[in-house]
Amino acid sequence: MRPRARNVHAVILAGGAGERFWPASRAAAPKPLLRVVGGASLLAATVARARAVAGRDRVWLVCGAEHADAMRREARLPPARVVVEPARRNTAMASAVAALVVAARDPEAVLLVLPADHQIGDPAGFRAAAGRALRAASATGALVTLGVRPTRPDTGYGYIDLGTAVGKAHPGLHRVRRFVEKPDAARARRYLRSGRFLWNAGIFAWTARALLEEVAAHAPELDAALAPLRRDGAARGPSPGALGRAYRTAPSLPVDVAILERSRRVWCLPVDFPWSDVGTWQSLAETLGVNPARSAVVEGEAVLCDAPGNLVWAHGRPIALLGVEGLAVIDAGDAVLVARLDRSGEVRRVVGELRARRRHELV
Amino acid sequence: MRPRARNVHAVILAGGAGERFWPASRAAAPKPLLRVVGGASLLAATVARARAVAGRDRVWLVCGAEHADAMRREARLPPARVVVEPARRNTAMASAVAALVVAARDPEAVLLVLPADHQIGDPAGFRAAAGRALRAASATGALVTLGVRPTRPDTGYGYIDLGTAVGKAHPGLHRVRRFVEKPDAARARRYLRSGRFLWNAGIFAWTARALLEEVAAHAPELDAALAPLRRDGAARGPSPGALGRAYRTAPSLPVDVAILERSRRVWCLPVDFPWSDVGTWQSLAETLGVNPARSAVVEGEAVLCDAPGNLVWAHGRPIALLGVEGLAVIDAGDAVLVARLDRSGEVRRVVGELRARRRHELV
Repeated sequence: MRPRARNVHAVILAGGAGERFWPASRAAAPKPLLRVVGGASLLAATVARARAVAGRDRVWLVCGAEHADAMRREARLPPARVVVEPARRNTAMASAVAALVVAARDPEAVLLVLPADHQIGDPAGFRAAAGRALRAASATGALVTLGVRPTRPDTGYGYIDLGTAVGKAHPGLHRVRRFVEKPDAARARRYLRSGRFLWNAGIFAWTARALLEEVAAHAPELDAALAPLRRDGAARGPSPGALGRAYRTAPSLPVDVAILERSRRVWCLPVDFPWSDVGTWQSLAETLGVNPARSAVVEGEAVLCDAPGNLVWAHGRPIALLGVEGLAVIDAGDAVLVARLDRSGEVRRVVGELRARRRHELV
Repeated sequence: MRPRARNVHAVILAGGAGERFWPASRAAAPKPLLRVVGGASLLAATVARARAVAGRDRVWLVCGAEHADAMRREARLPPARVVVEPARRNTAMASAVAALVVAARDPEAVLLVLPADHQIGDPAGFRAAAGRALRAASATGALVTLGVRPTRPDTGYGYIDLGTAVGKAHPGLHRVRRFVEKPDAARARRYLRSGRFLWNAGIFAWTARALLEEVAAHAPELDAALAPLRRDGAARGPSPGALGRAYRTAPSLPVDVAILERSRRVWCLPVDFPWSDVGTWQSLAETLGVNPARSAVVEGEAVLCDAPGNLVWAHGRPIALLGVEGLAVIDAGDAVLVARLDRSGEVRRVVGELRARRRHELV
């Protein structure tokens, strides 16, 4: 059974902090707003993807209060379709609240949930996969995760251990054996060789009804926290007071941990489109085609003398590279980072050191 | 015979361009004014060395017109002891003019000539060596060069091929077999092994009279160019008009090439004090004690995470280094350089590229 197009909604989750993109992203300028690929922000690109699946009027955004105005402007969404979280409670709460809010308008809603700050290289491939996942979710009540076939033994991603095929009615869909946290390098290589493990992309399809049933069944604390929102008049969206009460008691857990690892109706759709969580300067460099023979300049002016394999982001003044390779050189205007790309996942150490020095304006 | 202390003068030559220190030094901010060691500029440190040898009132400065005011302020010298060159004509002209100008005040002058932008690690050792060189120059009319015993096979320095000892009257002083231009790496290693080659430090001792005699004997074009200055009333220093006429026709040659390689009265005093021409970021790094286990921050705030062996110069905003080694990271406010220290001698390529892009304000 196809979901009727008018029941398909897309929910964009934009709650993360993005310390791993310091100094370009930080508390005051979060990662979804970074213009890293072709001049468009990650959020704007995500909104475009969401619209292609759900249609202009059924795209929703969940984001934190600090950045609500900037996010709303960047996403070009009306306030009624932006849920402003009064506190960070991770993706289980954000997903449940979104399901509740959308269901108040459309009890038959089928949701595509997607992070605001990922990069996807093949829009048509993404649309096709999302459509299949939404159809399966709509027809069966399954919680469907998208699993990206790994192209390298990445230690920065969580993995999905793929189970048996669901059956002929839903070709390509599989049950899930388990979710696995970020592995070490040896295990990541085994995962890649096995062909059985997929990257957990954090992109999901489910009906609002099914998700809320699974919240009630497996996450009682979370379910209880939703009570003020259920009592709230839902037509105009949740009131700040009800949101405040709900978030005060909500547990802070990823949706994978709180729901998907416990539910028995979780399926996975393996997908092949190029995907990155753009989680580090290195993954951005890969997205932008940096390789041992080629550097990339995100923005601004660079002078490169014998300097291949670097990622450069200038800010007002030019950056000159001489004889260096494999670096991220990021000038954010009020701070400069020079990091080996293959260690750029450790940039939180810099942020930690700046906090220890009480340089809070820089983090 | 000791030179009478009141005949000893020190002449500081501050004419160079310093492109190899881009982006910190450039046309608008020449290398002698860089505050690179302990907060003092190279020029101020040189003036202190010069005063320790020649006394407060017998220190002279030769510099270009563009930077005359800034140099004079930094050196804290009265205008009467600053010769402002109307054009760049290299060290032969600067040395000859200085000899003429000082001799007009003191015909028996013995000069210590020294570059404005070098670094010397052992002030007492320098004073002792300068005193010996000045005594030999004063007693014999020799042109005495200081030759620094090499500590590594440096390809960035010119070398002096040491000849036989002068004799018991002047212990330590040698004749000079020849001056050698910057060698390639293999030859530099041979020079180091031989023990016979010294770095040409560009520091000289001679009487004004002896130098001018050798100019007349070996550099007739240069000698002719000095004529307007000889006719000039010398007591108040050379007039701008006479300087203009002299520099219009003067050849542009290093004193080594124009005089020392041709004269038969050139001696060399081998010295052991730590010396650097601070000609590249790498040599500055060595001067500041950068080694594979240690980074140095010239100025400003740095955050170093697993980042030894780097030279950092911040400018207003902090620079964070993560997992990188052996780099010069220089923020000059309007441009940032990230270069491998062992290739920092090639920084002129960056300057050339910026010129090609017509970014003249940056070079």
